[in-house]
Amino acid sequence: MNVLICGLGLIGASLAKTLKKKTNHTVLGWNRTESVTQKALRDGVIDRSGELEDLIQEADITFVNFYPNAIIPFIFKHKDCFKKDSIVTDSCGIKTKICNELDGHDFDFYYIGAHPMAGREVGGYDNSLDTLFDNASFIVTPYEYTPRNKVDALIGLAQDMGFARTVVTTPEHHDEMIAFTSQIAHVLACSYVLSPLAPSHAGYSAGSYRDVSRVARINADMWADLFVDNKEALVREVDDLVSNLMQFKYNIVNEDTQALKDLMNKANRIKEEIG
Amino acid sequence: MNVLICGLGLIGASLAKTLKKKTNHTVLGWNRTESVTQKALRDGVIDRSGELEDLIQEADITFVNFYPNAIIPFIFKHKDCFKKDSIVTDSCGIKTKICNELDGHDFDFYYIGAHPMAGREVGGYDNSLDTLFDNASFIVTPYEYTPRNKVDALIGLAQDMGFARTVVTTPEHHDEMIAFTSQIAHVLACSYVLSPLAPSHAGYSAGSYRDVSRVARINADMWADLFVDNKEALVREVDDLVSNLMQFKYNIVNEDTQALKDLMNKANRIKEEIG
Repeated sequence: MNVLICGLGLIGASLAKTLKKKTNHTVLGWNRTESVTQKALRDGVIDRSGELEDLIQEADITFVNFYPNAIIPFIFKHKDCFKKDSIVTDSCGIKTKICNELDGHDFDFYYIGAHPMAGREVGGYDNSLDTLFDNASFIVTPYEYTPRNKVDALIGLAQDMGFARTVVTTPEHHDEMIAFTSQIAHVLACSYVLSPLAPSHAGYSAGSYRDVSRVARINADMWADLFVDNKEALVREVDDLVSNLMQFKYNIVNEDTQALKDLMNKANRIKEEIG
Repeated sequence: MNVLICGLGLIGASLAKTLKKKTNHTVLGWNRTESVTQKALRDGVIDRSGELEDLIQEADITFVNFYPNAIIPFIFKHKDCFKKDSIVTDSCGIKTKICNELDGHDFDFYYIGAHPMAGREVGGYDNSLDTLFDNASFIVTPYEYTPRNKVDALIGLAQDMGFARTVVTTPEHHDEMIAFTSQIAHVLACSYVLSPLAPSHAGYSAGSYRDVSRVARINADMWADLFVDNKEALVREVDDLVSNLMQFKYNIVNEDTQALKDLMNKANRIKEEIG
């Protein structure tokens, strides 16, 4: 197969490197900034590049790896150029908005929403890794009418690439879960380091500070869009988190150690059970 | 020197192992549950044990590694037995309450509050490590009247043990900083996994979930006391955190991507600068 990677940043280039390492597919690559494409060619991260219109006509599967709000315009702009019966997918961290806007159109190709779930605190081509997805989930959110063989083809590719797990779900369930597992974790890490005490942590911090604050190194431009595009689910998570924090506060103020123990034992049990 | 380790749990036994590995001091050990003492002797983690009253009369430095509320009664109970001019210290994660209660007494020994800053999600003798303090800070909170040579002796021991950094400060400043670097991180990790969505995270989670939730594996009995004993500083941190979370929520609800970017860029800058 010809697999086209559009956008050779952290995720796109890591997908390309993984495809080269784990599969025999031909990897086509395209990036808005031409110098990155040339670097990827020199590094052997992609097999070929060329004019975008030519590449998308050749590709059996196209991965669109842009910022959330650039994906839909890109697909609509090129909707008549994608190879007939090919699969077009993306790697964006929210799915409902994108899948809804691309739903019900008379395309010659099959759009299937996807989310290869991995990231780093640092972005861009130079930080991409052929190991980024080693323990990662590959989540797909097809429409009810998406042909089974197309979904299977995309899942099969993810399995060949060595993703630890593939998950098929609805865009809505994906977004609800991601609000909890990823988005609120980033909101929380940022909120944490915004404490007035953060700048003087040196000498007073250990593993818990390091781990809880890690994802405060964040690509603000990208995540601002992701948060707004998943507003309802994320606000629900913020509310739940604040409500739990206020329970802790209430029990601390009242020096109710038994209630604190109950809360922590519950959290401890959950964490032990679910990992 | 004879260094006595009272309490051979995670911290105490890790201190003993580190002393054996990095120094030539004689390591005396005592544990309430005798079988643990015997195990430590068999494992060569301590050189000698015996009757508690005999051990504390021999020890040049005694580390008391008990739950917060057991430390003060222990020291008062044995106040007339500790070796004259010896140093008695502890490893508890809060200092103001303990240092205040032990302040101004006519002891024959010198009590100096200390906090070797490291931990694990798992506790007890069997999880102790001779590497636990490799990148850790050793914080001491002496009184103004504590003789300089006694403070230097304790710091010197910590340096010999390979602590990455030693810090001398007041109990109050220690507790304020620990509320931020450690206590609120634990409150926050527990509050996070108490979300109704936590039990179904599998397949939808990656590094941010893993790191932010790690310290939800918590010793509830110990931390409940630590939280209540550091009530004011910790409540201030909860309030700051909730206020930052509400700023995120407000901007998400209003779809104000610019304000979200500003908040995240600020957090990102702080994290990049301070590590």
